[in-house]
Amino acid sequence: MNVKARTLTINQDRLQKRIQELAQIGKIGETGVCRLALSPEDRAGVDLVRSWMDEAGMQTRIDDFGNLIGRVNGRNSDAPLLMIGSHIDSQPYGGQYDGVIGVLGALEVVQTMREQSLVPEQSIEVIAFCDEEGCRFQKGLFGSRGILNRLEPGELERTDKNGVTRRQALIEFGCDPDALEGSVYPEGSIGAFLELHIEQGPILDSADEAVGIVSAISGPLWWTVELTGFAGHAGSVPMNMRQDALLGAAKVIVAVNELARLDPAAPTVGTVGHLEVFPDSRNIIPERVRFTVDLRDIDLERRNEREQALREVIELAAMEGGLKYTITEDTNSDPRYCASWIKDIIREESKAMGIEPRELMSGPFHDALALSYVCDYGMIFVRCKDGISHNPQEFSTYEDIALGTELLYKTVLRII
Amino acid sequence: MNVKARTLTINQDRLQKRIQELAQIGKIGETGVCRLALSPEDRAGVDLVRSWMDEAGMQTRIDDFGNLIGRVNGRNSDAPLLMIGSHIDSQPYGGQYDGVIGVLGALEVVQTMREQSLVPEQSIEVIAFCDEEGCRFQKGLFGSRGILNRLEPGELERTDKNGVTRRQALIEFGCDPDALEGSVYPEGSIGAFLELHIEQGPILDSADEAVGIVSAISGPLWWTVELTGFAGHAGSVPMNMRQDALLGAAKVIVAVNELARLDPAAPTVGTVGHLEVFPDSRNIIPERVRFTVDLRDIDLERRNEREQALREVIELAAMEGGLKYTITEDTNSDPRYCASWIKDIIREESKAMGIEPRELMSGPFHDALALSYVCDYGMIFVRCKDGISHNPQEFSTYEDIALGTELLYKTVLRII
Repeated sequence: MNVKARTLTINQDRLQKRIQELAQIGKIGETGVCRLALSPEDRAGVDLVRSWMDEAGMQTRIDDFGNLIGRVNGRNSDAPLLMIGSHIDSQPYGGQYDGVIGVLGALEVVQTMREQSLVPEQSIEVIAFCDEEGCRFQKGLFGSRGILNRLEPGELERTDKNGVTRRQALIEFGCDPDALEGSVYPEGSIGAFLELHIEQGPILDSADEAVGIVSAISGPLWWTVELTGFAGHAGSVPMNMRQDALLGAAKVIVAVNELARLDPAAPTVGTVGHLEVFPDSRNIIPERVRFTVDLRDIDLERRNEREQALREVIELAAMEGGLKYTITEDTNSDPRYCASWIKDIIREESKAMGIEPRELMSGPFHDALALSYVCDYGMIFVRCKDGISHNPQEFSTYEDIALGTELLYKTVLRII
Repeated sequence: MNVKARTLTINQDRLQKRIQELAQIGKIGETGVCRLALSPEDRAGVDLVRSWMDEAGMQTRIDDFGNLIGRVNGRNSDAPLLMIGSHIDSQPYGGQYDGVIGVLGALEVVQTMREQSLVPEQSIEVIAFCDEEGCRFQKGLFGSRGILNRLEPGELERTDKNGVTRRQALIEFGCDPDALEGSVYPEGSIGAFLELHIEQGPILDSADEAVGIVSAISGPLWWTVELTGFAGHAGSVPMNMRQDALLGAAKVIVAVNELARLDPAAPTVGTVGHLEVFPDSRNIIPERVRFTVDLRDIDLERRNEREQALREVIELAAMEGGLKYTITEDTNSDPRYCASWIKDIIREESKAMGIEPRELMSGPFHDALALSYVCDYGMIFVRCKDGISHNPQEFSTYEDIALGTELLYKTVLRII
């Protein structure tokens, strides 16, 4: 038993046991999880969580997007519902907490309400969205965009690395991809959305704070940049005759970093995470380099300025190096701000619990990003060790998760 | 018929036909060649060249290193021999000229001498060295180091990508890897070595000059550098908390280029040709980057200065980025200078032919590099289009090759 648990309304032991039990499905190594969207492991996870929803007295269903939904009817069946949740699919080499605590936390909130004999005014739905991660079909937030009728053309025909289409995968999961309209939520039916999630960053851990209030999800700008020069023997082409694509890429990588740091007080981040060289031989001058750029900011105007500056850097690097270049925009999302009134409630309830969480930006996106286009939303972050996520080393303490869940519970009580 | 051919002693048509016929073995596409060392294609090439050596009246043999050797006995059997040659193995995606013109050119020289009824004072051996390229077992100059007893321990146990050892490959080629000592040349038995080769660089082509006189083979310094930071979500780790290995690598790549250009008049070259990122995902900060450095100079002292400066750059980039690093030295060869007396002969004979070739450094190494440790050597370069080599686009005109071969012929006549 831990000290804090005694002061909580929610049941930390139950929550902890469920996190541990779910982590057995798709377990890799001692602490890792591989539960790819729409896989047999994902289905086993969904069935297990559904059994807990049933146990908590919820009406449960799996919709045709593969979302698991548990419902508690409110007194006012006309009021827009409060949706709470996250996802339980994982990265191929993922951890036990990402998404999971938002689903099991929401379930814990509703089960605690029931145990406290609280009947909400508006209906509550706890949801485990299908395929938030997007690593199987290279496009995420599937379930959350699906229920909002925000899928793009062709998404059902995207294939995984074995050539299986999402359509086939949905059918194998037990869904009917030809009946998706039936799973779309009517406009105005969702009143607000809440999501509890691990931070996936190091800010709370380095500040030694258990939970945080999300201010916004910064929209990522994602590029693929390709620089093309001319290959040649590394020993024989004089430096002034070279068209070295990797040299051009290196200048851009340095600039991405400098531009993201330009305002040290801003939360701007810029990353080159993927890079490939052709022909990639130690004694051949690189002819072609393809790399990604990931640029995020809570302030769209500032991000646009950085983007423009980066375009100029690429133009200059290409000109200096005799390179051709292309910039392909893969994703361009705006920052999406959390509702002030929800942040206020979270802050007030935190204070009542004796904590004063900081506000922080979410760099990663979440299912809440999709919901932000149709309703107000709020998010609570739970610290994770060293900010590690998408990795079996991902770790949050059960005490922190319970604290975040208690805060979510208190927040829900204020909203319903 | 071309104009120059009428003034040549050597037989340009025969040389051209042989180059074309050899290019059929291992042909890829219209102009490419894949004739990996000790492969069936390599063996077929060796057998074809051997038949031409026989036709030219030479005593031929394949030694146990896989070298093809054709000998013409001189009048003085005690004199050190003159060795002339290169290689006929190719890169996996190679061209028709690299190595080949040095073997077929040497053969043409000897055959022309015979047709001119010239008997040399010293014996001449034309040699096609086994596995100059080194791409199959990741270590080249095998045959040329072999005959000089300069192989390193374990070389026979190196494997290709299919797990075949060089020992097995030699046996399949028809060699006896347990009898290698019998193929080693006694000290002092080789008096001089001559090699005709395409430049594999753009200097002659951009100067519109058909041939050049090699001053030295610049020794490459080859490193593998590994930088290790810490992975994290690209959206959530603030810039000032990052340990981005790719950012550190980018700084080093920029510095390699700057250091190689420090003295614009010097032939120093520096290249990062291979680079790999881990985990190489667009939204994860690179944790580990491994890349190669290739640094070459004709002036060892200057190369050492650049090396020292580069070590300091890596140290600084690692310190700034919170990275660990290792530098592994894969190869460290000194520049090897061509013999002045041979360069003088080539220059004089060029003048007699009405051309004034420039001297230029060889960035790439050649079999001559191995020979340089036991005898004087000279090299003649033939221009190749745009400096392209190790590529099916590799191209030299038959006129230029014939001119280079004629110059080799004239040079040989002065030496023997």
